Amino acid sequence: MIRFSKGISHILAIVTLFATLSLFTSHSKAYEYWDRKVSQFDSLPVYPEDIVFLGNSITDGGHFNELFNMPNIKNRGISSDVINGVAKRLSQVTKGHPSKIFLLIGINDVSQNVTVPNLLKRYEALVDSIVSQTPETKLYVQSVMPVNHSFKRYKTLYGKDKVITEFNKGIKEMAEKKGVTYIDLWPFLADSQGRLKKEYTNDGLHLSGAGYKAWTKGIDKYVRE
Amino acid sequence: MIRFSKGISHILAIVTLFATLSLFTSHSKAYEYWDRKVSQFDSLPVYPEDIVFLGNSITDGGHFNELFNMPNIKNRGISSDVINGVAKRLSQVTKGHPSKIFLLIGINDVSQNVTVPNLLKRYEALVDSIVSQTPETKLYVQSVMPVNHSFKRYKTLYGKDKVITEFNKGIKEMAEKKGVTYIDLWPFLADSQGRLKKEYTNDGLHLSGAGYKAWTKGIDKYVRE
Repeated sequence: MIRFSKGISHILAIVTLFATLSLFTSHSKAYEYWDRKVSQFDSLPVYPEDIVFLGNSITDGGHFNELFNMPNIKNRGISSDVINGVAKRLSQVTKGHPSKIFLLIGINDVSQNVTVPNLLKRYEALVDSIVSQTPETKLYVQSVMPVNHSFKRYKTLYGKDKVITEFNKGIKEMAEKKGVTYIDLWPFLADSQGRLKKEYTNDGLHLSGAGYKAWTKGIDKYVRE
Repeated sequence: MIRFSKGISHILAIVTLFATLSLFTSHSKAYEYWDRKVSQFDSLPVYPEDIVFLGNSITDGGHFNELFNMPNIKNRGISSDVINGVAKRLSQVTKGHPSKIFLLIGINDVSQNVTVPNLLKRYEALVDSIVSQTPETKLYVQSVMPVNHSFKRYKTLYGKDKVITEFNKGIKEMAEKKGVTYIDLWPFLADSQGRLKKEYTNDGLHLSGAGYKAWTKGIDKYVRE
């Protein structure tokens, strides 16, 4: 057992308490946000002519109606959401049997240190639920986007580049096996070193206006096909 | 001068450092979010037939197209935004000369301890800018919404109820003087004690689905008139 002097022990205890409280508040806020969004979505129906963008903060932040100039796109992104979070609220989307769903989820699971096999297990369960709940919907699964550590913002994603690559490889194989369309977003967003292009972000994870332009331009043909 | 023992001083120094870092990160994240949204809005034109909802997180969180079932509503809310933040990005909205603007801003300024005269000075400058930049737009200024401290989430708003009431009184008088429509949101959202109704929020500040329903139902006649 490591022994500290009384002074150091006090300092460590207080810092730990502060860190825990800070983490707790941040988790509570994320959960409260999720809960409010879900309660709003509960009263907003999805229709068969709709195209639904489903995911986390990257989806949440996009003004897709305007970006594609299509009024029938509905944003069902929730900041901080994870694969199982989407699964929990899935019926809000599938019960409307939209024409298309564009799924983009998983980076927050990666940041929570979920292993690749577990990421893929969660992802496959989600895809299976979508397909079984609304077989008439055309499902597009999108690769997890590249990140860029040079912004030094998301330390929980440091060293996870290989996890992201392996995860995407697994999503692609799964999609092909299930006859679901896989969209590799990396050709639209990554630089030559496999990082999210600097000009498409300001924190290495989320998209700026230029990033949303590049993403939506890249998938435009799928949205309109 | 207060004197602390060396141990206590160390503890205080570390807690202060931690608090400052935590505050700094949270401010940076808020600013980065603001910056990304502004960069996206920069490429999304506003048209004369549009109705623009302009404000902070409360606006940001609302799916107004769906809530009103009107495709020509554009969301220009940015989480954490303040009166001067809206002023900075105002031209993105006014240069499109939309038919209507629904403004809802000020609670984050209140939480930053701005005095009522200064709140009103900032607010009046913003209203004047809107009116001068796009006189053909019908401007609706909405009262700052009630809050509910029983959720114990936003301590920076504790004891500010009188500031909010006085601020709203000033906004109303200013609007009448300038011939701008003032909408008092309290009849739609407040309980008998002047708090945001419990069933309309989950943190005492932001709106749940039921809250968005109550707000948008309350202002429906202005949106459609």
